[in-house]
Amino acid sequence: MALQDFDLVLFGGSGDLSMRKLLPAMYSRDMCNDLPPTARVVCVGRNDWTPLEFIAAIETNARPHIKKFDQKVWEKFLERIVYVSLNATDVSTYGKLVETLRRDEDITLVYYLATPPQMFARICENLAESGLATPNSRVVLEKPLGRDLASARQINLDVGKVFAEHQIYRIDHYLGKETVQNLLALRFGNILFEPLWRREWISDVQITIAEKIGVGNRMGYYDTSGALRDMLQNHLLQLLCIVAMEPPVSIAPDAVRDAKLEVLRSLKRFTPHTLAQNIVRGQYRAGHVDGQAVPSYRDEPDAPDSSRTETFVALKAEIDTWRWAGVPFYLRTGKRMSDRLAEIVVRFKPIPHSIFNQPTSSFQPNSLVIRLQPDEGLRMNLMAKTPGEGMRLKPAELELDFNEQFKTPRMDAYERLLLDVLRGQLTLFMRGDELEAAWEWVEPILQHWEQDDSPPVPYASGTWGPAASSALIGRDGLQWREEALPED
Amino acid sequence: MALQDFDLVLFGGSGDLSMRKLLPAMYSRDMCNDLPPTARVVCVGRNDWTPLEFIAAIETNARPHIKKFDQKVWEKFLERIVYVSLNATDVSTYGKLVETLRRDEDITLVYYLATPPQMFARICENLAESGLATPNSRVVLEKPLGRDLASARQINLDVGKVFAEHQIYRIDHYLGKETVQNLLALRFGNILFEPLWRREWISDVQITIAEKIGVGNRMGYYDTSGALRDMLQNHLLQLLCIVAMEPPVSIAPDAVRDAKLEVLRSLKRFTPHTLAQNIVRGQYRAGHVDGQAVPSYRDEPDAPDSSRTETFVALKAEIDTWRWAGVPFYLRTGKRMSDRLAEIVVRFKPIPHSIFNQPTSSFQPNSLVIRLQPDEGLRMNLMAKTPGEGMRLKPAELELDFNEQFKTPRMDAYERLLLDVLRGQLTLFMRGDELEAAWEWVEPILQHWEQDDSPPVPYASGTWGPAASSALIGRDGLQWREEALPED
Repeated sequence: MALQDFDLVLFGGSGDLSMRKLLPAMYSRDMCNDLPPTARVVCVGRNDWTPLEFIAAIETNARPHIKKFDQKVWEKFLERIVYVSLNATDVSTYGKLVETLRRDEDITLVYYLATPPQMFARICENLAESGLATPNSRVVLEKPLGRDLASARQINLDVGKVFAEHQIYRIDHYLGKETVQNLLALRFGNILFEPLWRREWISDVQITIAEKIGVGNRMGYYDTSGALRDMLQNHLLQLLCIVAMEPPVSIAPDAVRDAKLEVLRSLKRFTPHTLAQNIVRGQYRAGHVDGQAVPSYRDEPDAPDSSRTETFVALKAEIDTWRWAGVPFYLRTGKRMSDRLAEIVVRFKPIPHSIFNQPTSSFQPNSLVIRLQPDEGLRMNLMAKTPGEGMRLKPAELELDFNEQFKTPRMDAYERLLLDVLRGQLTLFMRGDELEAAWEWVEPILQHWEQDDSPPVPYASGTWGPAASSALIGRDGLQWREEALPED
Repeated sequence: MALQDFDLVLFGGSGDLSMRKLLPAMYSRDMCNDLPPTARVVCVGRNDWTPLEFIAAIETNARPHIKKFDQKVWEKFLERIVYVSLNATDVSTYGKLVETLRRDEDITLVYYLATPPQMFARICENLAESGLATPNSRVVLEKPLGRDLASARQINLDVGKVFAEHQIYRIDHYLGKETVQNLLALRFGNILFEPLWRREWISDVQITIAEKIGVGNRMGYYDTSGALRDMLQNHLLQLLCIVAMEPPVSIAPDAVRDAKLEVLRSLKRFTPHTLAQNIVRGQYRAGHVDGQAVPSYRDEPDAPDSSRTETFVALKAEIDTWRWAGVPFYLRTGKRMSDRLAEIVVRFKPIPHSIFNQPTSSFQPNSLVIRLQPDEGLRMNLMAKTPGEGMRLKPAELELDFNEQFKTPRMDAYERLLLDVLRGQLTLFMRGDELEAAWEWVEPILQHWEQDDSPPVPYASGTWGPAASSALIGRDGLQWREEALPED
């Protein structure tokens, strides 16, 4: 189905996200001839650039992030770009934007707020005041969506004054990943998985987002945020919802979001007592990543003295439902880890009894590995017979990705999600109540840490975090996947 | 574990099976350095050949069936070959054999009876009388193991007078196929399959052995046998047992054979009424196979006038257990089919409800295909998301074979089974009571056909059998797999 003509407005249009992700994503769609001929990308920024100066900025900052460059497509794409200089928080500067945008019923108007969340309220107000918040316009919000329950509620309130819920697209780019959607297809497009997708057969679920990088030059933001707010409250909990949700009635936005909301509301609440037992926070110290010496968090540029901000968090979550009671969901994320890795591991229980001439303990339990970074992939670990004589079983890996069979290229997460916005498909975006439910669950942890004087546990850069993280899962007789992998 | 030294005696040593399968299998093991240096293959036949003449016969008849020929290995292998001329039914001619064989406790003595079953009793007697049936000798029996329950019982009785049950290896080469054993590994080495392996999730099971060839020059045997005796009573029922058996306590021979026996004994008995409804027998007429004109069964050389022997049989079996009640097992086999094919298809039920924007009917139900011929393979049919925008699911095929991962070559079925005999591993061989149970179930069909005057249904060569075969399965609202496959 062809896309309706649109004006896509990028607030923060000269910023990092626009240059690295959003403009390259739109270019890629243009390359596939998916964009209507007169569709435009309107970049908004404070700089008083001429069109040519902005094009030059794009050439420098966006073009290097394009994978399949084609000069002809690029020239066509650049013709869609309009630069509008304004002060987003000052409504008196919106005149040029009003002039530029096509307020026609047949034109989809999208405002992508790639700005700090403190500006969301004001931008929405200004759009309304300028008559740009038309009933068929849409607004896209980028993380961080608040820093606690109160501020998240305030964002929902503020944006909600101008835009109805169905106009609001809260983006979590992990949900745009092909493999996350493959997981939904596997679970609900086949009879084989649902019967096994429950406490009777699943031992535990591990969700990891590990980065090699440190804070870099984001200290100003990061030190007031930390790993819990920056990664766990959003990405890790969203992935947990996709794994744990009951079969939604349909793939319609509210059906899926109701199912996810139900998961968030079923998460067992932490008490001060269970918090201490089930959460580990860490902060990196000097160490080596990829053989290169890296400094301690506290020695990074602009680091506040004796900061207590966590750069690592691991926790054990539980979901109080018939399906999941007693199945631990271990979540962790950290900076300066030994590897860059984002994956979900669904670990099945061991076989109850070995009929073969090898002990039950020699059977690696089945697991489904949903890999999101550095490469995407869906793999099942099985035990299989080694060919030839006798009956000897060994672990084997089964590729569950069908991209080769379909011979269609995968889409980048932002590309996919931008298309969904332009088409008005809300399924992969968070609803306001979901956002609040996630913060609600996280809130006691934030409060506990504020009251707690003890600092985060230090860990050496280039490791998998503090030993307490292994101990957390080890208490249940389990291991993080990378610790359980055989060396080879 | 190294193989114990052995003398392997092939009765029918200059026959078709020896030349095409047994000698090439032993050569292949020799190539892998699996045979003890002094191990021998003693070929027994009626011809009064000199050693050189027999070697010449092997060069002509066995060598073309060797896949990886190596002159050095071949020469080494030929040194193991001893030819003994005797009349198997005449004990007075056994002297040379007695002289040849090493009756030592450290030598495994195996008698492979690649002869018509009418000779089994006499050969065993003669071996006993000659003192060759030592307590640690073994006897291997090839099909046909009887032509009805009475004759099968007689074989068991006759052989049992000389050899104890644990010395008797009743071969069904389908059980020697790697993929059949992979199925056991999948079912019992992983937690994932057993919960789904039952009536709640499985719609039906289809087992097909289709040949392109006709009767050829085997009319003398075939016309007194037919497809039911020749293929269904043994191969098809054995495969059914492997699919349907309960988890055996262990892989020990009697544990597995008890589990298989239980399946045979749980097969719903046919009555004259259900027989007429649930069995189709056919006989091929002239037609085209691979574009070549082929004659009718009745026009084959030596065909008796108006023979009523079936060259095709299809039936619906049911297993009266908690696990399988209500799940039809469709078995069929035939000659002059449109394709050479042996496969087991385990078809799962459809998903109960589509959450996606495509109707439930567009979801191909999952199925596991265990392919034995012409190539071996284990594949799962799944629905998967097509890459890119939106959520569209399409059928995809998943390879469940791990041979590439293990980088070990597959073994030919006879090679595998001969090794099992030499090692004393009985698991993949039929026990006497299993054989009788299979005949017991088939007996009412044989009797019905004998009393029934109606001839088999004719079908054109180069088809999938009579239309009644499609109707048989169609009555349950189902289709044979090849009829359900989309054209591409």
